[in-house]
Amino acid sequence: MEPKVISRAVVERLPRYYRYLGELMENKAERVSSGELSEMMHITASQIRQDLNHFGGFGQQGYGYNVEYLYNEIGKILGLNQVHRMIIIGAGHLGQAIANYGNFERRGFRVVGMFDQREELAGTLSPTGVPIYHMDTLEDFVAGHPVSIAVLAIPKAAAVEVARKLVACGVRAFWNFAHTDLDVPPDVVVENVHLSESLMRLSYNMNMNKE
Amino acid sequence: MEPKVISRAVVERLPRYYRYLGELMENKAERVSSGELSEMMHITASQIRQDLNHFGGFGQQGYGYNVEYLYNEIGKILGLNQVHRMIIIGAGHLGQAIANYGNFERRGFRVVGMFDQREELAGTLSPTGVPIYHMDTLEDFVAGHPVSIAVLAIPKAAAVEVARKLVACGVRAFWNFAHTDLDVPPDVVVENVHLSESLMRLSYNMNMNKE
Repeated sequence: MEPKVISRAVVERLPRYYRYLGELMENKAERVSSGELSEMMHITASQIRQDLNHFGGFGQQGYGYNVEYLYNEIGKILGLNQVHRMIIIGAGHLGQAIANYGNFERRGFRVVGMFDQREELAGTLSPTGVPIYHMDTLEDFVAGHPVSIAVLAIPKAAAVEVARKLVACGVRAFWNFAHTDLDVPPDVVVENVHLSESLMRLSYNMNMNKE
Repeated sequence: MEPKVISRAVVERLPRYYRYLGELMENKAERVSSGELSEMMHITASQIRQDLNHFGGFGQQGYGYNVEYLYNEIGKILGLNQVHRMIIIGAGHLGQAIANYGNFERRGFRVVGMFDQREELAGTLSPTGVPIYHMDTLEDFVAGHPVSIAVLAIPKAAAVEVARKLVACGVRAFWNFAHTDLDVPPDVVVENVHLSESLMRLSYNMNMNKE
């Protein structure tokens, strides 16, 4: 099946469908109706039918969706049927938290190395067995190993420069936790996780809630 | 100034304006034009004028915005002119990363305690001096100390139950890092940071980029 370009709003919802379908599979459910998904996910059934229509005729009237088929098709669209080799820049608490998160490995995101500028960490392993290298060896490593995603778990001052180097080495995707926007060429993909901004949205909604 | 209800799309952009205005203040800039902001932020100048119009007449034609005034007004709208007392559930790497993040403290988010079920952590301090308590003491703590935000940095199986307890104790805002949706009453605010979903969006965009 050829991936189609889907509206950003639908794409934003796909990982959530994928999560719920994964839970249904864990519970050995074979089929699910739009009504059942609606109740679980707090989205209207018509919205669900509309979203899932983008992927061709998975659903059958009165019979529901085949959970495993839909899970796998959405997985393919999300690129989860491939192995992504990932490096993590920064072996502080955030970098370690990401390296420890077993769900990523299960979905094909394989952490192949962590990089830190602290001499004492170089040559050690993370608790999950990922080798930690010194930052000075980053470019040599990337030249010798295929890397599809670089995770930036370092402060913003360092992140911009490291991203520039990695782009020059051919890295084409960044998962950016640094509190800054990266300036990258148009063929490079960046997904930002700006935690401060998330916390401010929470604070805004708390404020509105009091009205 | 009374906070007004602003469209969700504009609210989503406010923290980013706040960040850029903060950087301008650090650089001692007193005024900024929509054209300059446009170049920095890669948003059109007309979009910027439209967004900032929501807050009343900050800008003057040909003269630009007063950086400090705009920064403070957006800060008030985002609720950053208040102190938010925050507890972190889970003193693993993710919880520690959040507790260590100095920017939150600067913006009024004060971490007053961390909770973990590991006996050996109870009674210790995080590297930034936050006391770590045993999970069994959570409800007593919340009964005795005002807490406005609970951060859930624990696996999903535990998160749902802990959130239920905290809601019963009167906590009205959650910053949820657990990979699940919380089922809370309508007067409780939840901001989710679902890292797996963010990583899947990255993977989707990598896939689309190859076309």
